[in-house]
Amino acid sequence: MKKIRVAVMGCTGLVGQQFVRLLDGHPYFDLVALTSSSRSAGRPYRQAMQWSVGTEVPESAGRIAVLDTNLAAVMSEAPEIVFSALPPAAAESIEGALRERGIGVFSNASARRMDADVPILIPEINPGHLDLARRQLGRFGGFIVTNSNCSTSGLALVLKPLDKFGIREVLVTTFQSISGAGRRGLAAMDIAGNVIPWIRQEEEKMARESRKILGQLDGVNIVLPPFEVHATCCRVPVREGHLMSAVIRFDREVSAEAATEALASFRGVPQELGLPTAPERPVIVREEEDRPQPVLDVLAGRPERARGMAVSVGRIRGNSGAISLVLLVHNTVRGAAGTCVLAAELAVSEKLVN
Amino acid sequence: MKKIRVAVMGCTGLVGQQFVRLLDGHPYFDLVALTSSSRSAGRPYRQAMQWSVGTEVPESAGRIAVLDTNLAAVMSEAPEIVFSALPPAAAESIEGALRERGIGVFSNASARRMDADVPILIPEINPGHLDLARRQLGRFGGFIVTNSNCSTSGLALVLKPLDKFGIREVLVTTFQSISGAGRRGLAAMDIAGNVIPWIRQEEEKMARESRKILGQLDGVNIVLPPFEVHATCCRVPVREGHLMSAVIRFDREVSAEAATEALASFRGVPQELGLPTAPERPVIVREEEDRPQPVLDVLAGRPERARGMAVSVGRIRGNSGAISLVLLVHNTVRGAAGTCVLAAELAVSEKLVN
Amino acid sequence: MKKIRVAVMGCTGLVGQQFVRLLDGHPYFDLVALTSSSRSAGRPYRQAMQWSVGTEVPESAGRIAVLDTNLAAVMSEAPEIVFSALPPAAAESIEGALRERGIGVFSNASARRMDADVPILIPEINPGHLDLARRQLGRFGGFIVTNSNCSTSGLALVLKPLDKFGIREVLVTTFQSISGAGRRGLAAMDIAGNVIPWIRQEEEKMARESRKILGQLDGVNIVLPPFEVHATCCRVPVREGHLMSAVIRFDREVSAEAATEALASFRGVPQELGLPTAPERPVIVREEEDRPQPVLDVLAGRPERARGMAVSVGRIRGNSGAISLVLLVHNTVRGAAGTCVLAAELAVSEKLVN
Amino acid sequence: MKKIRVAVMGCTGLVGQQFVRLLDGHPYFDLVALTSSSRSAGRPYRQAMQWSVGTEVPESAGRIAVLDTNLAAVMSEAPEIVFSALPPAAAESIEGALRERGIGVFSNASARRMDADVPILIPEINPGHLDLARRQLGRFGGFIVTNSNCSTSGLALVLKPLDKFGIREVLVTTFQSISGAGRRGLAAMDIAGNVIPWIRQEEEKMARESRKILGQLDGVNIVLPPFEVHATCCRVPVREGHLMSAVIRFDREVSAEAATEALASFRGVPQELGLPTAPERPVIVREEEDRPQPVLDVLAGRPERARGMAVSVGRIRGNSGAISLVLLVHNTVRGAAGTCVLAAELAVSEKLVN
Repeated sequence: MKKIRVAVMGCTGLVGQQFVRLLDGHPYFDLVALTSSSRSAGRPYRQAMQWSVGTEVPESAGRIAVLDTNLAAVMSEAPEIVFSALPPAAAESIEGALRERGIGVFSNASARRMDADVPILIPEINPGHLDLARRQLGRFGGFIVTNSNCSTSGLALVLKPLDKFGIREVLVTTFQSISGAGRRGLAAMDIAGNVIPWIRQEEEKMARESRKILGQLDGVNIVLPPFEVHATCCRVPVREGHLMSAVIRFDREVSAEAATEALASFRGVPQELGLPTAPERPVIVREEEDRPQPVLDVLAGRPERARGMAVSVGRIRGNSGAISLVLLVHNTVRGAAGTCVLAAELAVSEKLVN
Repeated sequence: MKKIRVAVMGCTGLVGQQFVRLLDGHPYFDLVALTSSSRSAGRPYRQAMQWSVGTEVPESAGRIAVLDTNLAAVMSEAPEIVFSALPPAAAESIEGALRERGIGVFSNASARRMDADVPILIPEINPGHLDLARRQLGRFGGFIVTNSNCSTSGLALVLKPLDKFGIREVLVTTFQSISGAGRRGLAAMDIAGNVIPWIRQEEEKMARESRKILGQLDGVNIVLPPFEVHATCCRVPVREGHLMSAVIRFDREVSAEAATEALASFRGVPQELGLPTAPERPVIVREEEDRPQPVLDVLAGRPERARGMAVSVGRIRGNSGAISLVLLVHNTVRGAAGTCVLAAELAVSEKLVN
Repeated sequence: MKKIRVAVMGCTGLVGQQFVRLLDGHPYFDLVALTSSSRSAGRPYRQAMQWSVGTEVPESAGRIAVLDTNLAAVMSEAPEIVFSALPPAAAESIEGALRERGIGVFSNASARRMDADVPILIPEINPGHLDLARRQLGRFGGFIVTNSNCSTSGLALVLKPLDKFGIREVLVTTFQSISGAGRRGLAAMDIAGNVIPWIRQEEEKMARESRKILGQLDGVNIVLPPFEVHATCCRVPVREGHLMSAVIRFDREVSAEAATEALASFRGVPQELGLPTAPERPVIVREEEDRPQPVLDVLAGRPERARGMAVSVGRIRGNSGAISLVLLVHNTVRGAAGTCVLAAELAVSEKLVN
Repeated sequence: MKKIRVAVMGCTGLVGQQFVRLLDGHPYFDLVALTSSSRSAGRPYRQAMQWSVGTEVPESAGRIAVLDTNLAAVMSEAPEIVFSALPPAAAESIEGALRERGIGVFSNASARRMDADVPILIPEINPGHLDLARRQLGRFGGFIVTNSNCSTSGLALVLKPLDKFGIREVLVTTFQSISGAGRRGLAAMDIAGNVIPWIRQEEEKMARESRKILGQLDGVNIVLPPFEVHATCCRVPVREGHLMSAVIRFDREVSAEAATEALASFRGVPQELGLPTAPERPVIVREEEDRPQPVLDVLAGRPERARGMAVSVGRIRGNSGAISLVLLVHNTVRGAAGTCVLAAELAVSEKLVN
């Protein structure tokens, strides 16, 4: 198979770096362009940022000269797919322009997540929402697919297998890592040895994005599910991995055993198709009384290419018609770049790009 | 007023040290004896431990020769009150023996908290439970009063002012500091940059102790309140202060404003009596969107003697008949030694000791 | 005694806050004005920053309306002394202008430290350098006195008592806390669980400032001492307190005992004069094998007003004509605001201000 | 080539786990036995410890039933080589007994490092010291080879390429990670947000082991080099990787360029032989002003099997006849298990085992 030419916009931040790492040696994709703000542009990628997502910058990506993020520059490299790790303000217009040029954009930016015709795609959960991208394709020549907010991706992957029991309400408290705020987003004095019990816009995103992802695409519109998500989002002094304590209430009594079984046996379309970045199991149930833990479990998922793509769940307990559990998601892999890459793999498999 | 002779058992650990700090220059109490395991016994207090609760060991306490923890040694110093920071196994028998010798024991140990005739006393919440101690006095000549588990003390102080709205259920996720596990209770490799989503016996203690504290003493028995407490207890890499994210469900709709007003205006008997260790306000409501935080708020409470005795509450939000909030308690002060000292002050004021 | 009117410029950062804390209830000084960048100006101090240097903003300072940092605004409050916690670029011109208006400026900024007529004053070490300020007074009507870089202040206080043995060379490796980079100076992802073995300009400052401080004022010029200081400056994930491992080489053999005795017995002019912010002992020698430690010792110094003003030294060892030791200094107190306040107290005592 | 049967004694700790990880799929070695204290013995390895050195326990090792650490148990599996991660007291007698049974023991224990006939082998530095093992072979039928203390291994690898300039003295201050104290060796309250400026026996080990490693084997005895190593060893809140600030004094002037060139071009016998665990470059020179850093550089070394085997060096500066530099070593890989495995590979290559 001829490889598909891809670009990464916003390549110097943590999510941008994860894109580069995940695309290194990718069986479908050939990374041909990297863009960044003009400050870093012009330099070879290796010298344009401080590599923080592994020991060494991939050889070939390291030599790519970083382009300034603008439409002409991106188009000059003739990509078929563009991955976007841009900040929301920068993302909105260029992503739209790329779509009109026939590009398939897979974006980590929040700017267009709530657009009616843009799916928030988590391939194990709502592969059918790709129909929204197909509709964009007809209208614009290209399309935009987004991933969800980092915390939401972990929560939604746990809600999906439990949805069959009839979810009535979700209460969640998060323990989010500092990498979630970006390379320079959080001052050390604010979080060292501390907890900050609030993250701007995070609770709102979890509430609305979870519902869109778990909604049913009814031809043109997504019919939202009948439950609310109430979140309290906190920052903790952990480098990577968002842990969450959730209570999920159902229409009927659900035992811990039934919930465990539903979570452990969950598989989705990416697993059936054997997509390269799909973990064998999207949800891993831990039996130990004190797991998951960020330091031990953040890289869950195999094969090697799917490290950090599995959500770990533990402490599944039933009480008074609700299930309590603890879950952990790798915020810059499954919660960001990894899900975008997996979505692009699904789009290729579904012939939206070729 | 002649000062009352007091002893501290288990003086070398973090809670023992907080007892020593709080008793330094106390207007009611004269610290005359300190006990520890035989390993430290015989040495002046200053050399018997690594002082960790402030800059310097109080002068006079520093010179006291530490006794081995046994009945004869404690009684040899003729205390009227004994504060206990012993581990549960060690506490059970010696606390009982001291009670039979006419001593008033104020204990941080969990061993006897659920005894029917022993109150878990938080003076702002259930001063009337002191009647149980009065009953013990008649039977044994002395009495035992316990404090609650560290997390419970913070939660209960927030539940009390809201109880009038009719609490139906409490869901709480904790972010507990490493000092809660004691000076050597937690290995650095386990918690550095990590979260451990489980603490042995902690969830069970929160469930049962909260209900006993908030129960009504009906002559002889405590009538438990009609709600359950479901906790998920987690350890975070913070030195001091337990933060909690709680959702409290009521029989009827309660607005955030009403909850805020109830919490901010809460005062108890210790405030009315002006007890030395009573904070002006037992609950401090923070208006900022990102408070309370352990590093900034753990020492809340004034005057100086009441530092760490106030619980801070923030992020009070109403949703679908429930109130969500975040609270913070100083786990070794309000959650341990401080509440025992305050309880002893109340007992003196109520003439149980004199 | 009538109190002297003082202002603090740059009041919202960590050093500015320490100034405010140290000036609260000060026996010589009356805090009448606070300035900040225009972003915070106009608001009451309490709402202009996030208080981070203690539990509560001092009552009276909290109500002061923060002024924009400019000459007219500062002069409108008619201060006699101005404490400056401004960044270097902002400091240079306004400090000079204030001096020409007859103000005594005590500055934490590095801008003018190496000016020939400006002393870097550490009152225990070089009180005679105040003559430089006296000379400025004649020329400008006012004067500028600086403190040293935060690490230098700790090192210099340890070198001074040892100087009599004939220092030939100083090698020092620092473990500097994150507060040394300011409230927002260091990104959490850079330092969490990490060490950064370089701090911009820090090694150069230590080398040149130490020598100026320990130089002899020979009428008009400072004669530099005959040794070099070679530093390797590293950042560690500690909130407050700069620890250093130093090797000091002498012209002759010096025993650990002799060095210990020299350090422990060291007193300076501030101790003789009983200045309010002077610690009883400027250098505290710790006998334990594993001290000083930032968490335990950063607040060393008494009385209460001198907390954080004493440097702790431990692990004093002699080897092959050199002394090795470990020292700890509170970087925002002794290393910044505290030394400025002490210098101002000395200036008052020496009648440079009245 | 037929694989050599090997065992790991002390398999549950961090170093034991690194042995298991490094031996997984090893081209020379077949892991046939694992031993531990009787507490864990009997259980499959997977359930006998908390895996902390990667995401997942190697499949085959995970199924091995852990044996109690005793001579009979180890010999029952007929290993030819035994890797030892035992504590010193436990190591001394069993390692001696295994040697008498004809086993080649590669030990991380300090017990026998200073034995005259036992080499401290770092294959890039002193491969010729393997002659000591050959001599043991003649006398006992088997032999013991040790690695050095974790900090020493990093320092020695940096001293070796510089030795040709005539080292006169080494001064070093360490920033050692918490994993160096073992899985449960350090209490969280002691190190969280803190620095401890002392590690038991560490400075003595660095002083004597460095000299033995860099000594010349003169037939029977090791002639020690003419310099001393003076260390100040400190613990910092970092999970993995020991960083050091060193000043190395020479007999003659050495420029930073010459030192850099010597370090960057250094290769040893393991690189010539292409041993499986040998990193391409044993010392990696970083040009950036702020490297090495534990979080970014601890896993330096390739290929994949040699991750953590390269020492990173940066900040190479010359001053007054000395070189200052900062180095970083992975304490449980290059500083422990990795060097033992590399030494065993060398021994196989040199036909001491076959």
